[in-house]
Amino acid sequence: MRRVAVVGAGMIRFGELFDKGYKDMVQEAYLKCLESVDKGIVPKEIDAGWLGCYYETDGQTTGLMADHLGLLEIPWTRVENACASGGDAIRNAFLAVASGYYDVVLVVGAEKMRDVPTNMFGWKGTEKSRDFIWDYPIGITGAANFAMHAVRHMHEYGTTKEQMALVAVKNHKYGAKYPYAHFRREITVEDVLRSPMVAYPFSLLDCCPQTDGAAVILAAEEVAKKFTDTPVFIAGASTGQDRCMHMEKEDMACFPSTIRAARRAYKMACIENPTKEIDVAELHDCFTMTEIITYEDLGFCKRGEGGKFIEEGQSELGGIVACNLSGGLKAKGHPIGATGVAQCAEIFWQLRGEAHVQAEGAEVGLTHNIGGPTAASCVIIYRVC
Amino acid sequence: MRRVAVVGAGMIRFGELFDKGYKDMVQEAYLKCLESVDKGIVPKEIDAGWLGCYYETDGQTTGLMADHLGLLEIPWTRVENACASGGDAIRNAFLAVASGYYDVVLVVGAEKMRDVPTNMFGWKGTEKSRDFIWDYPIGITGAANFAMHAVRHMHEYGTTKEQMALVAVKNHKYGAKYPYAHFRREITVEDVLRSPMVAYPFSLLDCCPQTDGAAVILAAEEVAKKFTDTPVFIAGASTGQDRCMHMEKEDMACFPSTIRAARRAYKMACIENPTKEIDVAELHDCFTMTEIITYEDLGFCKRGEGGKFIEEGQSELGGIVACNLSGGLKAKGHPIGATGVAQCAEIFWQLRGEAHVQAEGAEVGLTHNIGGPTAASCVIIYRVC
Repeated sequence: MRRVAVVGAGMIRFGELFDKGYKDMVQEAYLKCLESVDKGIVPKEIDAGWLGCYYETDGQTTGLMADHLGLLEIPWTRVENACASGGDAIRNAFLAVASGYYDVVLVVGAEKMRDVPTNMFGWKGTEKSRDFIWDYPIGITGAANFAMHAVRHMHEYGTTKEQMALVAVKNHKYGAKYPYAHFRREITVEDVLRSPMVAYPFSLLDCCPQTDGAAVILAAEEVAKKFTDTPVFIAGASTGQDRCMHMEKEDMACFPSTIRAARRAYKMACIENPTKEIDVAELHDCFTMTEIITYEDLGFCKRGEGGKFIEEGQSELGGIVACNLSGGLKAKGHPIGATGVAQCAEIFWQLRGEAHVQAEGAEVGLTHNIGGPTAASCVIIYRVC
Repeated sequence: MRRVAVVGAGMIRFGELFDKGYKDMVQEAYLKCLESVDKGIVPKEIDAGWLGCYYETDGQTTGLMADHLGLLEIPWTRVENACASGGDAIRNAFLAVASGYYDVVLVVGAEKMRDVPTNMFGWKGTEKSRDFIWDYPIGITGAANFAMHAVRHMHEYGTTKEQMALVAVKNHKYGAKYPYAHFRREITVEDVLRSPMVAYPFSLLDCCPQTDGAAVILAAEEVAKKFTDTPVFIAGASTGQDRCMHMEKEDMACFPSTIRAARRAYKMACIENPTKEIDVAELHDCFTMTEIITYEDLGFCKRGEGGKFIEEGQSELGGIVACNLSGGLKAKGHPIGATGVAQCAEIFWQLRGEAHVQAEGAEVGLTHNIGGPTAASCVIIYRVC
């Protein structure tokens, strides 16, 4: 298969964008993406488009993209894979370019999270992110779902609420310097511990916010040179799945969907030792413990040592793998479909030395999403060459 | 890009399957598909999965597939593209195999249409199939949407309700012989004309039913020989888009999304003269007039002559292009995500000489979907070699 590179990336500031509609957001992100291409690009150079989104905000997904971006003459696909929608949209676009059929494609990730209708169960669409028949009616919402994993990890490995809080503190520290972040302020361990309980062991500041947002990426293969002298290549990508119902999960202290996605993405990218080879990573810290468990699932540290990993600063700048230098979902925000695409934008900037909080000399990056009943993950590996 | 073939296909009988859940349907279709492979296949030979669906029946889409088909060890993607979801799932799977990364992939199309909750607007999810902000609130539902196109076609070209009725009569005639069809009975022009009005000019029998259903396909490239001596190759595939809002459509008497999808799919498959080269087609007859306009959009006849085309029997067995020998959406049914995948199954059978109503010697087939505010289409071309 031929190689595929990222050649441009644009995103808008995440947040509660009550003054912007869905169409405004995607147009703004798309235009920023076009402008970001070093040697310039015109819309007619784009061969196809992919949209990663979880909700159908504003209506029919692909028609709205084609219509409101003025890209009627290319085929569009919408990919949905719970919170891994953005990552999986990139993966499908990547495979399509790798096939040799398309040279230049656009990936848009977008979500309108705040001013959308709620349904009879509360937050619109929560029920569709897990087994609707069995798990949802017994109260397994997003927070409850991840909380059960967290409690199990605490029980098995002695991971503490303080260690979890450190994830939020770290990510807010970086988010404070990130111009696109929803929350641009630092917080302390005390702040996290004192914030109201959402679902034990998650206090409010253990949870990522529900933000609006949009992000755009352009990927191409060796045509890349036409657009930039510093492309960033996609070296491996996979989604991973797991059982939907929590009663059927065999090990609650890990995420098998991430383990499966990582195993295949590492193999594709020829990564043998993640701790030595991966310089920078954007992880799906929807809840603080999710980031801790993900360190382990991705092989950044041994099973059960995720708490120690954050405590020792190994996921900080200068540590073993610098994680979430964008502020992560916790501070930057989590507009579902946009999340994976924005992670790609951040790694693109990191590997080109253009990031806001830069991991100096970073050459290999990783993005990770996990969603639904922890049954859908996506891992993508990027390289400078 | 390397070639990709269909090597197996299975589907369940469409209908109002109140006795079957979503999980039952996909399992049954999947098992039938496995059994259909001439030289046999075992699940571990499948490298990746795609699901085409429009609703998230039962909850988190990819996790449910992985879980309930026992395919946890492969990556899964859900593709949604309105009524073209099934076709576009096949297209994405096709491109992924063409890339060289996967050898054997599974595509599942499934929808539970009848015993699902309705929302405050009536039929669950109608609003998400058009512009939710502008078009939907003024009453542009599925039938109203297509009805406007029909009225314009009648006005411009003199197409009649009798000609439209002939589409329903033809498709019911074939559907009566199709073991998987929702409606297995013939109807007359009189029946159609006398049935209650839904949205002028569509009477009840101009409209396809809302059925449950599921269908499954396996696609692979030259590894195909391992599975069958008579693979059916995918020669071209594209989606096509159009403006979302009806007030912005420039020509209501055609479907530009279909024209765009067909242009690209024909180019990819090197089809220059559809009337001479395409033997058999499965068209998206969600309403009778949709099939008539589609004859024109696909180049089966000249613009405005679709009414004459059906009247002269050119879309019948023995005509210029035999259309909807499965009964089409009108008689077979239209479980959205399953529709495009079931069309692929039918063309697979046609090109292998195994169809229930067989177009003798058929070597080139076409499938077509159109959905949402007629803003999303998918056209796929199949060849025996």
